Amino acid sequence: MENQSPKPIRCKAAVCRAAGEPLIIEEIVVDPPKAYEIRIKIICTSLCHTDISFWQAKVAPVFPRILGHEAYGVVESVGEHVVGFVPGDGVVPSLLGQCDHCPSCLSEHSNLCTSVPVSMAPGMRRDGTTRFRDAQGNPVHDLLAVSSFSEYTVVDMNQVVKLDPAVPPKLACLLSCGGGTGVGAAWKLAKVERGSSVAIFGLGSVGLAVAQGAKMCGASKIIGVDLNPDKEKVGKMFGMTDFVNPTKLDKSSVSEVIGGMTGGGVDCSFECVGVPSVMTDAFRSTKLGNGKTIVLGMGKETDQLCVPALELLFGKSVIGSALGGIKPKTDIPIIAKKCMNKELELDGLVTHEVGLGEINTAFDLMLQGKSLRCIIWMGK
Amino acid sequence: MENQSPKPIRCKAAVCRAAGEPLIIEEIVVDPPKAYEIRIKIICTSLCHTDISFWQAKVAPVFPRILGHEAYGVVESVGEHVVGFVPGDGVVPSLLGQCDHCPSCLSEHSNLCTSVPVSMAPGMRRDGTTRFRDAQGNPVHDLLAVSSFSEYTVVDMNQVVKLDPAVPPKLACLLSCGGGTGVGAAWKLAKVERGSSVAIFGLGSVGLAVAQGAKMCGASKIIGVDLNPDKEKVGKMFGMTDFVNPTKLDKSSVSEVIGGMTGGGVDCSFECVGVPSVMTDAFRSTKLGNGKTIVLGMGKETDQLCVPALELLFGKSVIGSALGGIKPKTDIPIIAKKCMNKELELDGLVTHEVGLGEINTAFDLMLQGKSLRCIIWMGK
Repeated sequence: MENQSPKPIRCKAAVCRAAGEPLIIEEIVVDPPKAYEIRIKIICTSLCHTDISFWQAKVAPVFPRILGHEAYGVVESVGEHVVGFVPGDGVVPSLLGQCDHCPSCLSEHSNLCTSVPVSMAPGMRRDGTTRFRDAQGNPVHDLLAVSSFSEYTVVDMNQVVKLDPAVPPKLACLLSCGGGTGVGAAWKLAKVERGSSVAIFGLGSVGLAVAQGAKMCGASKIIGVDLNPDKEKVGKMFGMTDFVNPTKLDKSSVSEVIGGMTGGGVDCSFECVGVPSVMTDAFRSTKLGNGKTIVLGMGKETDQLCVPALELLFGKSVIGSALGGIKPKTDIPIIAKKCMNKELELDGLVTHEVGLGEINTAFDLMLQGKSLRCIIWMGK
Repeated sequence: MENQSPKPIRCKAAVCRAAGEPLIIEEIVVDPPKAYEIRIKIICTSLCHTDISFWQAKVAPVFPRILGHEAYGVVESVGEHVVGFVPGDGVVPSLLGQCDHCPSCLSEHSNLCTSVPVSMAPGMRRDGTTRFRDAQGNPVHDLLAVSSFSEYTVVDMNQVVKLDPAVPPKLACLLSCGGGTGVGAAWKLAKVERGSSVAIFGLGSVGLAVAQGAKMCGASKIIGVDLNPDKEKVGKMFGMTDFVNPTKLDKSSVSEVIGGMTGGGVDCSFECVGVPSVMTDAFRSTKLGNGKTIVLGMGKETDQLCVPALELLFGKSVIGSALGGIKPKTDIPIIAKKCMNKELELDGLVTHEVGLGEINTAFDLMLQGKSLRCIIWMGK
């Protein structure tokens, strides 16, 4: 069933030609997969804040570029040396790879595969080139070697996760980045303990998935922090027990209020915004002794996380993570199963659905804070 | 053998009357221990950089004050409700308490006992008062509720560790803070793995004890970083395999050099200086994926630790600690045994020995970088 000599494919993609400008639906050419690569027909994709960061050129600004890194698709063809995948397999691409034999993959403490390492710079990870060309034959850059805002894309087999065909496409799409990151951060990285307290800064999709992950782990106090008062209601749907709106506080700081609610600070706080001052607030809201701050939000390339050094000495820690510490090939299928048996409820993250032609609507909704995840269906 | 009604004791102590001024040997009065307290006859004590920070008024400036928190002594008398200690017991006081029944003590992840919590402010931890008065009857403040620069002191039973009488007094003294912190940071906190790489910023007593702890754990590369070229020789005595002197580098930064020596950064770095820019260097010297930075050094109260947020997102972490994560009553006896059976070699940390009357010499030696630990004998 292997496709011996895949040909270039002409298809539609949403191309970002310049920072902050609307994406343009163009006809592009997607080259065949090279060795160790898989060409995927994207079924659905969704917009994540990380796409916005690249779109706004806050990180690794290179254009023209095809954004998108949360998706579900089907294997269309495979390159040489690809094992374990055949056309028709249901898969999610992942910004992180997993080879299962490098020191990081063999360690339980790291999810940054070193055999085909992640990079913020564009280019396929083995040869640095792109598989996309525009109608004029000029190269179009990829994003995180995934680029799912296209009907077809090529992804390194190291970054492709095979899923049980029973997993619904929308759920698979959610778990490939934001949902997996949030659940993973609570479950795998912070190892939230039964009866413990957590604070979640930023109730977007990642933050709400953290809430579900923390609830699954048995946290008894799940404090959501957001500037948007509408998040109080949505947070509670995801397991949040308490809400703090920093704009509604009189003289106290957020960390003082959280300290008061918890007798000295939470066991774990999660920063899901990517703003340095919020990272500091999250840190200050943790308890002395062993308070952990998990940083998940990505901001600008030059951002510094600053925390009071003396407070750190009292047993606090700050842990950063890509993808919430999950190993994509191992953990996304596990999280998918937990969702399907209702240990986790992430369906509510999908607030909007559009076709590829309306992709700029997804950007508008997210920028206006009106959406959590907007699913973009390729077939619509 | 319990002393039913201990009386005030007149004895000598080194009193710090003002920030940065030589200590004055004065006759003071040490009150009897109150409930849950133990009066200790100090046999020997040593000077730690943390004493210097308080002496220079970088933290919690209050004078007059009796500094000192690394010591070995013998129980002289006990207050009401003290169990497990009798006069004559060999003990070390500790700045951290351990009750063995609060949530922190019951957790393997914290060493900050919450039943009688640590405080940087002066005062015994249950009632906030001091047990010291000067010849005029005026109160003299304590340091960390230990104050070992005195022939006698009173310490909460929560902060007193009983030791096997076979443990030599000098070793016991070393382990009560600096030595225990360094070994603990490598062994308990970072959990240094066999074959891994570490970088140690600052080769004072704590840093050298980290080197011994890392060696005991099987680290294969132990890189010492210090501005003082003499530390290359001393570091090697403690297990250091490589030395970097930041003043001797041409155009590369310390983290670039360490990255080059290790193929991308160390598994763990230890900051043992207490300077924010060094904390940042230590962070940048760790590898992506799961590089850990352990912060042990204490600087000024206003110091901020700042690290590039995006680098953190690639799986790095920063962990702060008091006493290197060790639980004093549990772990100091274990480390003492490891030293006595030569799994650890900390004897070389004692570079000088003086009597109480020469205590200002100990300060001079440390400020000039000439000593590691200077033992101050009360009986000399």
